[in-house]
Amino acid sequence: MSRKIAGPEIERLVQLLSRLPGLGPRSARKAVLSLLKRRNDLLLPLSDALQQAVEKISECPVCGNLDTVAPCSICADPRRDQSLIVVVEEVGDLWALERASIVSARYHVLGGHLSPLDGIGPEQLNVASLLTRAQSPEVKEILLALNATVEGQSTAHYISDQLATIDVTVSRLAQGVPIGGELDYLDDGTLAAAFKARRKL
Amino acid sequence: MSRKIAGPEIERLVQLLSRLPGLGPRSARKAVLSLLKRRNDLLLPLSDALQQAVEKISECPVCGNLDTVAPCSICADPRRDQSLIVVVEEVGDLWALERASIVSARYHVLGGHLSPLDGIGPEQLNVASLLTRAQSPEVKEILLALNATVEGQSTAHYISDQLATIDVTVSRLAQGVPIGGELDYLDDGTLAAAFKARRKL
Repeated sequence: MSRKIAGPEIERLVQLLSRLPGLGPRSARKAVLSLLKRRNDLLLPLSDALQQAVEKISECPVCGNLDTVAPCSICADPRRDQSLIVVVEEVGDLWALERASIVSARYHVLGGHLSPLDGIGPEQLNVASLLTRAQSPEVKEILLALNATVEGQSTAHYISDQLATIDVTVSRLAQGVPIGGELDYLDDGTLAAAFKARRKL
Repeated sequence: MSRKIAGPEIERLVQLLSRLPGLGPRSARKAVLSLLKRRNDLLLPLSDALQQAVEKISECPVCGNLDTVAPCSICADPRRDQSLIVVVEEVGDLWALERASIVSARYHVLGGHLSPLDGIGPEQLNVASLLTRAQSPEVKEILLALNATVEGQSTAHYISDQLATIDVTVSRLAQGVPIGGELDYLDDGTLAAAFKARRKL
């Protein structure tokens, strides 16, 4: 690309948008065009919403969720089951569980998974604060809802070791055939897990 | 989705981002998470860049290009060939031609193509201003670089009819086999156009 398109402001917008997941340089250009074409119903509101996000949204000091209030609206909700803490890797996982309305409990966002090669040890994750929360008398169960990946599962092992001395039940999500899943398309690991955890009808 | 994720600020950000081309609700959520996680190197600069775009970028009154100066930097550039005006449908087409460094001329952005069913007639496009520009004595050629679609081509026909009374050469892009194209995979229309416009070696 020998010549720059338009001014540096547009270039910069394209460059920043192309750093979002799911957008490459080509789709970022399309997005910028669409923003500039729909100034009033898209560009202005988005600019405003980002400004609001910058000013208002922060990490919940208790659970690591993102919200405009601290503690977050989930932590502050007295109707939620106070005896269960659902541990997730990322806020996106929390959102997925909330969207599915599966459980009305509180969460704890680790902020990732252990990855020694990338220099991510327990100190880089919100592990210490989880151990403190687990000691609170109302907490009876810690559900480790981590990804069923190697990293997620080794993080789960580490945390369950740390929780061993604390008087709480530690649980994890069931593993097996996903709903709608066809055996022919499942990997060996899932099939093995589903077999090992088979249940009487 | 029975429960809302997080506060209305995050919801609104997801909703606005999902209206960008190439982003659905799922990828918009990922984008918002990534923005909130990378506050300093992504959220703040993007918020700032959008603010700048709102304040500074506007349509060039001469050619319809988007820029921070009016007339735009292309129209104002004296080194560009003043005798040729390249007519395109959208600013994205202008960018594509500029990226490819194909021509150093001035442009005219129509803002779309004729589409009577959608209520888009010549008055909704920047046609009148093109006719005015075409009458300027330094302009010798108008290149209709419109999309090779039915709409693009009927728009090109309409404009070339309008230009018939003005003393300028009206041209269009060549049609044929794209570079790297395999005959077996080309549509009949392209093959027919390539055959009709065949050239002596």
